Amino acid sequence: MKRQKTQSGWRNTIHEIIYEADTPLGKIFDIVLVFLIVLSVVLVMLESVKEIDANHHKLLLTLEWVVTIFFSLEYIARLISIRRPWKYVFSFYGIVDFVSTIPLYLSYILAGSQVLLAIRAFRLLRIFRILKLVKFLGEASQLKAALKASRAKIAVFIYVVLILSVMLGTAMYLIESDEAGFTSIPRSIYWTIVTLTTVGYGDIAPQTNLGQFFATVIMILGYGIIAVPTGIVTVEFSKHQKGKKGNHLVHTNTQACPSCTAEGHRDDATHCYNCGELL
Amino acid sequence: MKRQKTQSGWRNTIHEIIYEADTPLGKIFDIVLVFLIVLSVVLVMLESVKEIDANHHKLLLTLEWVVTIFFSLEYIARLISIRRPWKYVFSFYGIVDFVSTIPLYLSYILAGSQVLLAIRAFRLLRIFRILKLVKFLGEASQLKAALKASRAKIAVFIYVVLILSVMLGTAMYLIESDEAGFTSIPRSIYWTIVTLTTVGYGDIAPQTNLGQFFATVIMILGYGIIAVPTGIVTVEFSKHQKGKKGNHLVHTNTQACPSCTAEGHRDDATHCYNCGELL
Amino acid sequence: MKRQKTQSGWRNTIHEIIYEADTPLGKIFDIVLVFLIVLSVVLVMLESVKEIDANHHKLLLTLEWVVTIFFSLEYIARLISIRRPWKYVFSFYGIVDFVSTIPLYLSYILAGSQVLLAIRAFRLLRIFRILKLVKFLGEASQLKAALKASRAKIAVFIYVVLILSVMLGTAMYLIESDEAGFTSIPRSIYWTIVTLTTVGYGDIAPQTNLGQFFATVIMILGYGIIAVPTGIVTVEFSKHQKGKKGNHLVHTNTQACPSCTAEGHRDDATHCYNCGELL
Amino acid sequence: MKRQKTQSGWRNTIHEIIYEADTPLGKIFDIVLVFLIVLSVVLVMLESVKEIDANHHKLLLTLEWVVTIFFSLEYIARLISIRRPWKYVFSFYGIVDFVSTIPLYLSYILAGSQVLLAIRAFRLLRIFRILKLVKFLGEASQLKAALKASRAKIAVFIYVVLILSVMLGTAMYLIESDEAGFTSIPRSIYWTIVTLTTVGYGDIAPQTNLGQFFATVIMILGYGIIAVPTGIVTVEFSKHQKGKKGNHLVHTNTQACPSCTAEGHRDDATHCYNCGELL
Repeated sequence: MKRQKTQSGWRNTIHEIIYEADTPLGKIFDIVLVFLIVLSVVLVMLESVKEIDANHHKLLLTLEWVVTIFFSLEYIARLISIRRPWKYVFSFYGIVDFVSTIPLYLSYILAGSQVLLAIRAFRLLRIFRILKLVKFLGEASQLKAALKASRAKIAVFIYVVLILSVMLGTAMYLIESDEAGFTSIPRSIYWTIVTLTTVGYGDIAPQTNLGQFFATVIMILGYGIIAVPTGIVTVEFSKHQKGKKGNHLVHTNTQACPSCTAEGHRDDATHCYNCGELL
Repeated sequence: MKRQKTQSGWRNTIHEIIYEADTPLGKIFDIVLVFLIVLSVVLVMLESVKEIDANHHKLLLTLEWVVTIFFSLEYIARLISIRRPWKYVFSFYGIVDFVSTIPLYLSYILAGSQVLLAIRAFRLLRIFRILKLVKFLGEASQLKAALKASRAKIAVFIYVVLILSVMLGTAMYLIESDEAGFTSIPRSIYWTIVTLTTVGYGDIAPQTNLGQFFATVIMILGYGIIAVPTGIVTVEFSKHQKGKKGNHLVHTNTQACPSCTAEGHRDDATHCYNCGELL
Repeated sequence: MKRQKTQSGWRNTIHEIIYEADTPLGKIFDIVLVFLIVLSVVLVMLESVKEIDANHHKLLLTLEWVVTIFFSLEYIARLISIRRPWKYVFSFYGIVDFVSTIPLYLSYILAGSQVLLAIRAFRLLRIFRILKLVKFLGEASQLKAALKASRAKIAVFIYVVLILSVMLGTAMYLIESDEAGFTSIPRSIYWTIVTLTTVGYGDIAPQTNLGQFFATVIMILGYGIIAVPTGIVTVEFSKHQKGKKGNHLVHTNTQACPSCTAEGHRDDATHCYNCGELL
Repeated sequence: MKRQKTQSGWRNTIHEIIYEADTPLGKIFDIVLVFLIVLSVVLVMLESVKEIDANHHKLLLTLEWVVTIFFSLEYIARLISIRRPWKYVFSFYGIVDFVSTIPLYLSYILAGSQVLLAIRAFRLLRIFRILKLVKFLGEASQLKAALKASRAKIAVFIYVVLILSVMLGTAMYLIESDEAGFTSIPRSIYWTIVTLTTVGYGDIAPQTNLGQFFATVIMILGYGIIAVPTGIVTVEFSKHQKGKKGNHLVHTNTQACPSCTAEGHRDDATHCYNCGELL
């Protein structure tokens, strides 16, 4: 693999450490990163458990600071080690990385900034790539391709299900009384979707004979239409399965572009498909 | 596209505006229509929420009048701009359009006319066609074709499921007592369907050992038979998928016949498949 | 169609009326029979609803007598109009017909004979054949063939699911306390199956952290293994779909053998596949 | 079938009895073994039912001793009748057999040893092989092969579902209050999985409008993604179905290797695939 001469030595080294796993330091960095990503998510969970937070508040806060500082340094290192940092900053993972870093800083300025903590879980999506688990990457990319291909069909399906839910929910609101929990049409629609998807909490349940008869119809409908997305996805899967060998659908190259950090290059790529940079 | 000379100019213009999206006015009309359809459905929902209705009754009523008047005008415009209005009046969408318009008028004469409000949601089905979303139309037409082809099989399946439910429900009524909620055979059948479709509200649940054992059998049965509609639909989908290229199953022409308003013509159609009128 | 001369004229006529629909009388008989089968099932339901039974007890009892007498006469007519009555008596539908007839007679001798009422619903299975709905018969026979072919696989699947349920149920019994509803291992297994099949009543639900964690594992497991029966049935369906044309899998001949009443003969059959009698 | 001369006569006989079903004694042993395996599992269940245990404690304990002694003898017999006992001891079924035997002995030394009882159910997995049900073995081995092939894809799927659950659970914790049951993020994640898998206990259910709206989104998501494992497994099944004839995927030889007890040899095998011993 040719290295670009335009990059200064230390930036090059940082790039190697962060984006590749060829050197011992790069491997250690990857393992520490994965460990801290998992830790950052576990911390968010533990902080929300009252008893644990009450007894170990200090420890949790310290760990949160460790995670935050490491993520901050990693973010800065990523920025300076690539040639077009703005591309990274505004990429999906660039935003995820940034948002995962800032909640602790923000908490001193802004209340309610914990909302950003939920975003952290997105970083878990990168673990396969960080650990270079090529096999799983291949499977994931196949699944993604099949789901992408069935996107439009599933959108149509969900749209029709929603219209059905609005109609059936309105009907149930007129049939059932307030006492059974059907206090408004939006709530009736909520109940309809709970029933149609066969979740069935039971917090709202029909009590009149007509309502129960109607609910039965909705359930059997729901039982039937669950077949539709399954059929769509199965057919797409089987198509992608066949095309697999011939079309090189799956790109499991784990290298990242030094310029824009784009990943998922062809195995025989010499230039980045995204910015044209030499790899 | 040739225009018929037998139609007077202004009716022609109205037809262009309502049924096509080639002119600026036609496009504006389409967007306003979609907006008002969505608004009409949202209004029905909001009126049912007691707090919102109490505080904003006047606003909601005004908007309801706006929607009703627009829909009335649109209905009349549709009637006068086509040559065979009766065909439209008794078509599926003709009835939906009419019923979506009248609830407010009826409410002054008849109590309980809100039932008609549920029909309004049907108008949402047209949004793809109004907005000329050709891709989604194609997908929807494929889904429809596959479901149509599996109709008879699914009817047989549901029929057998219903017979099973009657038998199992009767058995559960004899096994379980009134206290557990199994107060009559219809209610037991309701419970059986709730269980067989894996909805499981929990408002009625078996309490004796025999009842719970029997319930277990029903659940595993339900778990197994959910495979049947899925299998049916998947096989149909895969057949339609293969036949797609050869048979031109999908017609995504968004033009409407000026005479009978039939839609879904072939891309290369010059005459309406329904009434033979020139397009 | 040749008629056998060995049968006396009136028995022949009865056979024509009961088993075929070629004569006007035969058609009327079929329609009355279907109507009374449906009525007999509806009666069982209505009798179980306390309010209805209290107010209309006499009417229901009269109708029950009408149904019972008609079914008795029909049963006798079936017996005398075929040449090998014992074959019919001990066939599946022979037993169903007999059991559907006797509950009212038995109720004067034996308490608890209502259990037999559940069997009545089985007669509904014959409606397609009585009404000679050839298309649905064909679909039903395809479904049956596909399910029959996947029988062994589904048996293995259910066996493994039951073993899993025993193990997971035992584990949950040890983890959760009596208060949460896990009072014994059989009840824990009941809960496990309720969860694994995604029914989820909520009458029993884990309350400890470990129990909820374990429940999560069971749910995801259940979510995954629901794919197995679906996969099995889908593959069988697609095989039967392909083999359909070549193998004449579907026999939609609605004729019944005059000797043993076997049905489902090949379209070109001249002899009964069951007893060799001329058709 | 050649027998090895290095084995003494009685060990040979024991091997024949335990591992094969060719001799009358071997058949009796197999039937007794299956009966006792089922009994051992039923005993564990009955002991946990308070009323039964209170009234029949002595009988249950006696039966437990019968099972334990038989299993102990069987375990020893297995050990001495094969040439490489350690291979058996550390094999999956070797461990299961050992753990199924010891709980009663342990209960005199250690409290809480009932945990091991759950392992007993694993022995039920062997019944097909003990009873030489070749057909079911074939089906089971096909199912296993298909599931094995889809393992990596399902792992990726479950991983993504878990990440989704963490994110959605965190969001729901921030939206809903403690009163609705969302007391901590782990509990919110528990609720999210209950909803996403369409189990829906109803012990925790959203009560605010925003929460219910969000729950609706999760349900429809769950309804959609259930299609993914189904699609994966179906495609694998259909592949294995096709490859069945050509590749001899299914090995239904019920013989066990006299040296290492490995099972599942090819029908035409003369040497163990595992240790090379003559069969």
